[in-house]
Amino acid sequence: MMKVKIYVTLRESVLDPQGTAVKSSLHAMNYTEVQDVRIGKYLEVTMEPTERPLDEVVKEMCEKLLANTVIEDFEYEVEEAVTR
Amino acid sequence: MMKVKIYVTLRESVLDPQGTAVKSSLHAMNYTEVQDVRIGKYLEVTMEPTERPLDEVVKEMCEKLLANTVIEDFEYEVEEAVTR
Repeated sequence: MMKVKIYVTLRESVLDPQGTAVKSSLHAMNYTEVQDVRIGKYLEVTMEPTERPLDEVVKEMCEKLLANTVIEDFEYEVEEAVTR
Repeated sequence: MMKVKIYVTLRESVLDPQGTAVKSSLHAMNYTEVQDVRIGKYLEVTMEPTERPLDEVVKEMCEKLLANTVIEDFEYEVEEAVTR
């Protein structure tokens, strides 16, 4: 069993109103050190071994469903041998 | 300047309907290897150096605003010297 950790982030050039709102809240709470906040998604996908190379499968899943590649980037890392 | 990467995840015992929906979609797309999907938030916070220890500040921000510690856990890692 493998655990794939996927990070989906808005592309640099895309405005992030949710992040801006969180930044304002942090400033209002006196965390004035905060310069910028960007908010993305974090997915943990538990998978059985795949017939095709895992990288290929994960990339395809991200491109087809998990990320909107027009406005989002994704990265992932794989942890092997998860026992739950 | 420091970049803090914060991962907010639902606690193990908390149901994740969004994750379940994504799992169903992946199965419908024939990614039957997928066993489980959990969805969380990923935040990138760019910060100036803090007077107090950074760990203390980040933990406090998470507990007060970024995570709901009743149902969510958080982890973070710090990357130093970001130039943008």
